[in-house]
Amino acid sequence: MGDPAGIGPEVCVKALTKHEISKAARCLVIGDSQVLRYAVKVSKLPGTTIHPISDISEAKFTPNQIDVLDLKNIDLPKLKMGEVSAMCGKASIEYIEKAVALAKAKKIDGLVTGPINKEAIHKAGFKFDGHTELLAKRTGTKKYAMLFVSDKFWVVLVTTHAPLKAVSKQINKKRVLETIRLANEALKRSGKPKARIGVAGLNPHAGEAGIFGKEEKKQIAPAVAEARKQGINVEGPISPDAIFGLALAGKYDLVVAMYHDQGLIPLKLVSFNKSVNVTVGLPIVRTSVDHGTGFNIVGKGWANPGSMIEAIKVAAHFARSK
Amino acid sequence: MGDPAGIGPEVCVKALTKHEISKAARCLVIGDSQVLRYAVKVSKLPGTTIHPISDISEAKFTPNQIDVLDLKNIDLPKLKMGEVSAMCGKASIEYIEKAVALAKAKKIDGLVTGPINKEAIHKAGFKFDGHTELLAKRTGTKKYAMLFVSDKFWVVLVTTHAPLKAVSKQINKKRVLETIRLANEALKRSGKPKARIGVAGLNPHAGEAGIFGKEEKKQIAPAVAEARKQGINVEGPISPDAIFGLALAGKYDLVVAMYHDQGLIPLKLVSFNKSVNVTVGLPIVRTSVDHGTGFNIVGKGWANPGSMIEAIKVAAHFARSK
Repeated sequence: MGDPAGIGPEVCVKALTKHEISKAARCLVIGDSQVLRYAVKVSKLPGTTIHPISDISEAKFTPNQIDVLDLKNIDLPKLKMGEVSAMCGKASIEYIEKAVALAKAKKIDGLVTGPINKEAIHKAGFKFDGHTELLAKRTGTKKYAMLFVSDKFWVVLVTTHAPLKAVSKQINKKRVLETIRLANEALKRSGKPKARIGVAGLNPHAGEAGIFGKEEKKQIAPAVAEARKQGINVEGPISPDAIFGLALAGKYDLVVAMYHDQGLIPLKLVSFNKSVNVTVGLPIVRTSVDHGTGFNIVGKGWANPGSMIEAIKVAAHFARSK
Repeated sequence: MGDPAGIGPEVCVKALTKHEISKAARCLVIGDSQVLRYAVKVSKLPGTTIHPISDISEAKFTPNQIDVLDLKNIDLPKLKMGEVSAMCGKASIEYIEKAVALAKAKKIDGLVTGPINKEAIHKAGFKFDGHTELLAKRTGTKKYAMLFVSDKFWVVLVTTHAPLKAVSKQINKKRVLETIRLANEALKRSGKPKARIGVAGLNPHAGEAGIFGKEEKKQIAPAVAEARKQGINVEGPISPDAIFGLALAGKYDLVVAMYHDQGLIPLKLVSFNKSVNVTVGLPIVRTSVDHGTGFNIVGKGWANPGSMIEAIKVAAHFARSK
């Protein structure tokens, strides 16, 4: 459900009442029933009811009735919509912990995460920067990556939420190679064995022969060479300001981006509200919406469920091919 | 003309034979006549001739005859097209030096620069990373910025060709404020006094309240506040992966980007071969193409003159309003 004070509950109820979603998968929300009732009201979905359950076996998967594994962890009078709070940070984490437990017990086939607020999580005393780090820790996963699926091109990130000044230190041959391999496995599993992968450089003009940076020559090019040796259809490093245009033109199916904004700026520009975050490398199928908690628009009924709808569809796709 | 071994000569002759360019400005090339003759041949422009001159007063500005201020600095038998060389690096610099001298003497109203190769320039013993640094030095300009004009949105860069790991050190309140002011002046001069400026953050999610970086709070937000106090219509810092979509949707006319790829990745994606680099803050009107030397396609006649055409038009526009 994501942070209760954000637009997560709203995009959940809007998505789960769509016919295309009922057809794609049997879905239930892990969250708080009172908050979701409020989201139904805000979203103006007359005829839609919330069905709170305490065990997954009670889910009915009936149209217009949303099954909610109710963790009852929100004190509604204290909830301030659109605001950062420790209560909501703690609740967000509890939804994820429950989902991980269900996935490990094979009671669910996939997990879609709503938007959470990192400040709220930190306020609640947790040290995680996001879902992904938490999921990796709980499943003992060392090699994983954030991959974004869209109808234009796919993007995978070598580093995730690092401050910009810390990115260079985190780029090394091993990590770049691992990311290429994880992306390649995801492409294959998704029925794209012949997909072409392009790897972006880190620096302006991919370092321009070392003048604007050395990481391309020292770390990225050797990783690409090694991946090619292993039979992966990959090229690079390519100038960051050129590679996404090439991908859009069809030259690459997937771009390996060195840092968050290098990949997310172009992706969001060409595929706003339509891209889906897939965590590759985890033993759990997990997708996520591509937007934040939208605190500035919460409670108005304006939240667009497009990304949540796509995230559910992509999770169902990966769960079937697992 | 740019680097003689690159596509600069080719885009020059292709652009200068367009009727729309003859109408926009009286143009001459500062370069080498032999190289340009080869470019005419490669570009398959029958009926176009090269008219070498040794002084600007000899220019005839006749259709299908390209006036070339001939610096005769290329030894044609030694020129290897598509390759980095000290000879071409040196020649590239000489074309610029000549242009600066003419601009200072008020013999030309504006300068359009073709693509040069930084490695070639370094090989020739020059320490400049590009035209802009050289032009700033020769004109004694301390405050200047690279601004990109396109039909979608404009972008100005706070830092230019810094390696990614050096960007954070170069971001400070003073520099961000200066860049906002230079951009605002250019917008006004270009007849857009009511333009809205958006300022991007440096880190993922614009630092997300300090969790992913502090530069937003310490440097960027204070600069934006100061600019607003000075009456500039500016907002920020805004999440880098959201601001360009907002600009595309019409919320901002110009985006202040913190580093090269933050601005150039989205710009090239939405406006490939149609964006023009304008150096704001110089006493000389100066625009540039948005592409490199294209060594891999030189000599084939494939080079697209679109960016050169736009660069000439934008230079003419700024020269008229100066």
